[in-house]
Amino acid sequence: MTSDATLARFREYMVGPSRFMSLLSCFELGIVDKLRDTPGLTAHQLGGAVGAKPDAVAQLLLLLVKEGFVAYDEDAGTYSLDALADVAEGDLRRALTYMNMIKVVALRQLFYLTDSARTGNAVGLKELYGAAEGTLYDIVADHPDLREAWATLMNNVTANIDPWFFGNVDVPAGAQVLDLAGNTGLGAIHTYRHKTSPGLKVTTFDLPEKEQECLENFRAHGVAEHCSFIGGNVFDEIPRGFDIVLIKHFLDMFDQDDVYKILNGVNAALEVGGQVNIMVPVYPEDITDTDNYNVDFFPAFFIGCTMGQGGPQKLSTYTNWLEDCGFKVTKAITKDAAEVPPDVIPVQAVICATKVA
Amino acid sequence: MTSDATLARFREYMVGPSRFMSLLSCFELGIVDKLRDTPGLTAHQLGGAVGAKPDAVAQLLLLLVKEGFVAYDEDAGTYSLDALADVAEGDLRRALTYMNMIKVVALRQLFYLTDSARTGNAVGLKELYGAAEGTLYDIVADHPDLREAWATLMNNVTANIDPWFFGNVDVPAGAQVLDLAGNTGLGAIHTYRHKTSPGLKVTTFDLPEKEQECLENFRAHGVAEHCSFIGGNVFDEIPRGFDIVLIKHFLDMFDQDDVYKILNGVNAALEVGGQVNIMVPVYPEDITDTDNYNVDFFPAFFIGCTMGQGGPQKLSTYTNWLEDCGFKVTKAITKDAAEVPPDVIPVQAVICATKVA
Repeated sequence: MTSDATLARFREYMVGPSRFMSLLSCFELGIVDKLRDTPGLTAHQLGGAVGAKPDAVAQLLLLLVKEGFVAYDEDAGTYSLDALADVAEGDLRRALTYMNMIKVVALRQLFYLTDSARTGNAVGLKELYGAAEGTLYDIVADHPDLREAWATLMNNVTANIDPWFFGNVDVPAGAQVLDLAGNTGLGAIHTYRHKTSPGLKVTTFDLPEKEQECLENFRAHGVAEHCSFIGGNVFDEIPRGFDIVLIKHFLDMFDQDDVYKILNGVNAALEVGGQVNIMVPVYPEDITDTDNYNVDFFPAFFIGCTMGQGGPQKLSTYTNWLEDCGFKVTKAITKDAAEVPPDVIPVQAVICATKVA
Repeated sequence: MTSDATLARFREYMVGPSRFMSLLSCFELGIVDKLRDTPGLTAHQLGGAVGAKPDAVAQLLLLLVKEGFVAYDEDAGTYSLDALADVAEGDLRRALTYMNMIKVVALRQLFYLTDSARTGNAVGLKELYGAAEGTLYDIVADHPDLREAWATLMNNVTANIDPWFFGNVDVPAGAQVLDLAGNTGLGAIHTYRHKTSPGLKVTTFDLPEKEQECLENFRAHGVAEHCSFIGGNVFDEIPRGFDIVLIKHFLDMFDQDDVYKILNGVNAALEVGGQVNIMVPVYPEDITDTDNYNVDFFPAFFIGCTMGQGGPQKLSTYTNWLEDCGFKVTKAITKDAAEVPPDVIPVQAVICATKVA
């Protein structure tokens, strides 16, 4: 790689924040929707429609024209959707949900990334939200902007990825399942729906303050008979008496020492032969694989914006860690990139393991 | 462009902010400097040296390994500079100065881009700095973080680009030159240095509060005899009695109506035959030219982070606007991209014009 190539790559990075917000802002202003309804509008007409000065509309649309997302008719001075006209609404909504989460949960917070790495706390949450030492997950309930951006995304992600997860894990008939850090019960509800069997019981384990909303969710989804809640902290003691523990979207939030605490705790809670089924984003085994974007996003996101620590690992690393903690890995698969829509950042893996004697 | 290609491009945009800060943070933490001094360090050694947890160091370095900026020896578990070892220190410093400016002046402020476009005010400055209606340039003096990030960059930019500007403009011997919006005198000092002639006089015209620092700069640079200061506002009245007006780094801050006010004001202040010499970043004539990054940066930067309005135009647009305002354009050249280091975003143009009867 020549010095010029390195410097050119730096320039790509330097325009990253402004590109991101220029694109998102054209959606937020309603410019894209307006052009979908009415192609062939001038900057003046668009400005009038969306409540912005025509000059600002013209400036922000330049990037979308450069990208071929929007077409500009130089003679008529009018804009129409170009490539954006061909993107299905559901695909666009999924991408915009993620973009909004990045804007609200990450953009400003990333400013404090260096301090967060030094202190092990997400300093941006303190600076922007007055959260003294908390993680995103501690304060999300108190801040509607964070909650809406983050919960909407996570519900989307869960809806998209859970069928794949449950298609790959074994939950025998009548199993007693613990959904570790199961938040307000969506994972338990999905478990019951995907793996229904006589006697199947799914228990959400999370902080006590989640109990009420979780139980309401169980009732609303008609699974209250089959699902329950236990309040507690995964770093204290993990409830016993379960055959299977699910750990979804959780291990990637922690550094190695905390992951070991969690896995050792799960091991202690299971009988020999008990299973743990994990879903977690993973880095590619060859970190220079340019098709995997986890590396581009998650380190800064977890360290700078949510936890002050954490980040995914390679599948082989998680496998090694599980074996260090008394498990035998029985399945370890990464989702095929060809099955993931091209705007989706996380590349997920499923790891199944059994407690050994 | 297929829908998949559009969505893949969205993903590139989505990782823009996290990529930007991951890279910058590795410099801010001192990881890159440490590896330059001592190649072959582990994450533990680096963490100890820079005061961060080894896990965070390893996570943040993943992206630099992916990019080939840093090499990771899997067997030894050690890092060394890869492509970054070949970048000259001055080049790196220039890029980092720009990156720091983007971080401090733009990253958080961009969150408010949509509101800024709607209101015509840089809303982020109000939210982050309590600046009720001011522009970046109004508040920069009161906020050391903004001033240092922005002034350091502008002095760098000026030092790099002024020789090219003065090599392309004609300042006859003994001319009376007005440097419009000349800030604290650096442009006037450069004018005198590059165009010295018997009788040459250069006057900085800017807001009255700049006078003291400007005059001090003239004295410190030994040009107090040849340079002076006039306080005022370019939107009120532009001083008369000058042969040549320089407008550098200024027109791109305004929407068309304000650019017209400025150019009409300059026209009114000049005699027929008087000249205006402009330096301004310009968009490419073909906006889809992927080598020009002005479009990727300046609209969001001016609207969201500094002015609440503005942004560059094409060279042909500025030429048309000058002719609308009573000038004949005598020279209009864009800096050759091959002469600009590959990390530099602004592509500058020089436009010279003469007042016609």
